[in-house]
Amino acid sequence: MKFQAVKGMRDFYPEDMAILNWILNGWRRVSVRHGFQEYDSPVMEYLDLYTLKSGEGIVSELFHLTDRGGRDLAIRPEATPTLARMVAARANALPRPIKWFTMPRLCRAERPQRGRGREFFQWNIDIIGVDDAVADAECIFTAVDFLREVHLTADDVVVRIADRRLHKAILTGFGIPDEQHEKALGLLDKAAKLEAAKMAEVWNEAFGQALPFDSLQKLLAAGTIEEFVAVAPQVGLKAESFEGPIGDLRQLWTHLASFGITDYCRFDLHIVRGLAYYTGIVFEIHDKRGELRALAGGGRFDNLLQLVGGPTIPAVGFGMGDIVLSELLKDLNRLQGVSTSTEVYVVDAEEGLFGDVLKIVADLRRAGIVAEFGYKRQNLGKQFKTASQRGAKVVVLVGQKYRDQRVVEVKDMQSGQQREVGVDELLADARAQLVAGA
Amino acid sequence: MKFQAVKGMRDFYPEDMAILNWILNGWRRVSVRHGFQEYDSPVMEYLDLYTLKSGEGIVSELFHLTDRGGRDLAIRPEATPTLARMVAARANALPRPIKWFTMPRLCRAERPQRGRGREFFQWNIDIIGVDDAVADAECIFTAVDFLREVHLTADDVVVRIADRRLHKAILTGFGIPDEQHEKALGLLDKAAKLEAAKMAEVWNEAFGQALPFDSLQKLLAAGTIEEFVAVAPQVGLKAESFEGPIGDLRQLWTHLASFGITDYCRFDLHIVRGLAYYTGIVFEIHDKRGELRALAGGGRFDNLLQLVGGPTIPAVGFGMGDIVLSELLKDLNRLQGVSTSTEVYVVDAEEGLFGDVLKIVADLRRAGIVAEFGYKRQNLGKQFKTASQRGAKVVVLVGQKYRDQRVVEVKDMQSGQQREVGVDELLADARAQLVAGA
Repeated sequence: MKFQAVKGMRDFYPEDMAILNWILNGWRRVSVRHGFQEYDSPVMEYLDLYTLKSGEGIVSELFHLTDRGGRDLAIRPEATPTLARMVAARANALPRPIKWFTMPRLCRAERPQRGRGREFFQWNIDIIGVDDAVADAECIFTAVDFLREVHLTADDVVVRIADRRLHKAILTGFGIPDEQHEKALGLLDKAAKLEAAKMAEVWNEAFGQALPFDSLQKLLAAGTIEEFVAVAPQVGLKAESFEGPIGDLRQLWTHLASFGITDYCRFDLHIVRGLAYYTGIVFEIHDKRGELRALAGGGRFDNLLQLVGGPTIPAVGFGMGDIVLSELLKDLNRLQGVSTSTEVYVVDAEEGLFGDVLKIVADLRRAGIVAEFGYKRQNLGKQFKTASQRGAKVVVLVGQKYRDQRVVEVKDMQSGQQREVGVDELLADARAQLVAGA
Repeated sequence: MKFQAVKGMRDFYPEDMAILNWILNGWRRVSVRHGFQEYDSPVMEYLDLYTLKSGEGIVSELFHLTDRGGRDLAIRPEATPTLARMVAARANALPRPIKWFTMPRLCRAERPQRGRGREFFQWNIDIIGVDDAVADAECIFTAVDFLREVHLTADDVVVRIADRRLHKAILTGFGIPDEQHEKALGLLDKAAKLEAAKMAEVWNEAFGQALPFDSLQKLLAAGTIEEFVAVAPQVGLKAESFEGPIGDLRQLWTHLASFGITDYCRFDLHIVRGLAYYTGIVFEIHDKRGELRALAGGGRFDNLLQLVGGPTIPAVGFGMGDIVLSELLKDLNRLQGVSTSTEVYVVDAEEGLFGDVLKIVADLRRAGIVAEFGYKRQNLGKQFKTASQRGAKVVVLVGQKYRDQRVVEVKDMQSGQQREVGVDELLADARAQLVAGA
C-alpha cells in the first residue's frame, strides 16, 4: 500500500520548496522594507468567525471539524477575519497605524483546478487606522515592489483599480435601490468574464426589468479617471454622486506617481471583488496575457472590525496567493536565483583522516558556511562528482599534505584554480578564504 | 461578541512573531549549513497514514475530519510519517543520502499544559540511506550547533543518548520474551519519572512475576558506555548480547568528538523514546535544571519506510518543538537579537513636500532599506518620537533645504550626530550612506 498527498494539496520536495521559499522570502523581505510587521495565527479558528459574516452557506467551502470538547472549528480559508479578530482584541493597546503582514497557509474545500488548489500560501498586507488614500497607495506600492523584485515588469502585469463607491453611485443612478446593490455588485464582478449580450440578458433578468446596460458598458469601459468623469454625465449620472470617490482616486494616483509606479496601474471599473466587506477602493493584479486568474486582490474594508466586535477603524489591504504567481513566473521563466546548492565540499583524499575531515567540516559550519562531505570514503573522482552535483563552489581536499604539514588544497570549482593553504590559516577566516574570495 | 483564538492555540502578535521567526530562521540557517535541504507537505494527510502504524487509538489524539468527497483526513500531528510517505513515493529517483529538514506546524488534540500546546512548530532533521553512526552523530551535531547558536551552553542543556538495542538486550537477558518488549520499553520510558520503589512494583506487576529490578537500576544508572560494559556482566548479561550496539555507540562517540560536541552529550539508558518505530540509537535533549519537558528527541528508525509501502532504507532523525525551547530561552534570558525595528525614518519637515517624502521613501525601499514615514504631517517632535519608538537607526529630514537645494539632513539616532547630504548623492548609494555608514 502506497500513500499519496491529500487530493488537491501539494508536497514540496526540495526543488519545489526552493521555489516556495524564494517566493516567501521575497514577500517577507519586501513587507519588512515597507515597514510592515509580521503576525500569524493558529491554523484553525472557531467556525463562527466565518459564518457570522458569510452565513451558513460558507461551511461547505471550508474544511471544518468538531474537537473533543465539542467546539466547531474550521481551517483558515482566508486571513482577513483573523486579522480583524486579533486587532479587535487589542484595539486600544496597539499603536496606530497598524501595518501588518502575514503569509499563512490557507485551505479551501474547493474542486482543484488550474491556479486554485485546496491549499495555498497567501501573502496579506494590511494597514489599519488610516483613512487616507496614501495607505491604499502604499499597499499597491508594496505589491508592485514585490512584482519588480521577481522580475515582473509593467509589460507582464497590471494593477487594475476601481472604487466600490463608484459602482454603487452607478447602480443608484440607474435606479437600483440600496438593498439590491450586493446582488448587483455580484453581477458586475462577473461582467468582465461574460459576453456583452449575455451580460445584458443576465442584468435585465436579475432585476426583472430592462436596465440601461449600454450605459453601464460605456462607464465600465472608461480607461482613466478623467474618462469616467467625462462619460458619466452623458449617461445621466450626477457629478455629486461620484465626486467623493473620484477625489480619493485622484489623490491615490498622485501618490502612486510619487511612488513611481503608475506604469503598473490602470483605472478599471470591471474590478469589483467578490467579497462583501470591501467599502471603497478595490484592486486586482492580473497577468497581461489574460491567461491566468488574478495574482492578487485587495481594497478598503472600513467596517470589518466592527463585525467581529471591535471598534470602527478604517482598513486597507490585499492578498496574493502563491499558486497563480508561481505559474506566471514559470510561464515567463522568471524564477531566477532559486538554488539548493552547497558552498563547500570537503573531500577525504587519504585513508585514516575521516576524523579530521569531520573536524574541518564542523569548523566551517560553525563559521556559518554550508559545508558537506561524504559518509563513506569513495575514490576522488566520485567525491568530486558528488561535489559538482551538489553545486559546490569550492572543494577543500584533505590528503597526504594535510597529514604531513596540515595543508589542504582548495579548488575553485568554476575557474578550476587550485591553491594550497595551511588549515589553521584557512579556518581562522574561512568565509573570506573560501566563499567570498572564490 | 468578541472572538478569541482557538483554545490551546497561539496568536502571534508582531512581538511574539519576532521570537518565532528568530527561532525558525535559526533552525533553517543551521540546517542549511549542515547540508540539509528543506521540504514540506500539506497540513493534512489521509487518516490511514497514522492509524496504519498506531491503530485506531491514535484517532482521539488527532484533529480529524471528513471532506466533501468522503475522505478521512487528519491534520499532521508529527512529520515523520509524511517524510516516510514522500521518500517512499520517489525512493528510487532521489539521490542518496537524503538529508532533509522541515519545520511544519503540527496539531495534536491534547489537553493544553505547560510546554505542550494543541499547535506547535517542530524542526525535523532526517538522514535517510546511511546506516553508519556518522549520520546519527551529524544529526546530534546539527541540534547542538543550533543550541550554541541560541546561546544555550553545555551547562544549560544535555543530549542524553541511548540505544534501544541495549534496552532489548537487557530485557532478553532478564528473560522477557520479544513479544513483551514493546510493553517493557513503554515502562522503561517512564522509569526516569517514577520513584524506584514504585517503578519496581509497576515492573513486577506488568509481567506477573518478580523481575530483577535492582539489576535494571544498576544498568540504567551507567553514566558512560564503559561503565555499562563493566556493570553488565555483574548482573548476568552476556557480552555477545550487547556488543553490536556498544560498538556503534563507541563509533558515535568518536564522531561526536571529531565534531567537538562531547561536552553536550551523555550516555543515559533512561532515554527510550515513546514512539514504537525507533530501532537503534535514541536521544533526547533536556534542560539541565530538569524543569521542562524534553527540548528535542530522535533516533534511528530503519523500518519506517517499509511500513508505508517503501523499500527498507536506514534512517535517523530528530524533532525539536518551538514551545519548550521558547520557554527555556525566556527563562534563561537568551532571546538576544530579536527585533522588529526599522532602519530609516523619513521626517516631513516642510509643508508641501509630502510627495517628495514619498519619492525618497520609495527609492530607499527599492534599495532594500527598511524605510518608514508618517501618513499625516505632524510637528517635528512627534515625528522624531515615532521614529524613536520604531527603533529607527537613522532619520532623514526633508525640509526647507530640500526645497531650496535638494539637500536633506541625516541624523544618527544613537550618536545624535547630524550631517547634510544632497539627496541625489544620498540615493545613489543609500545603504552605504545611511545604514552601513551609521
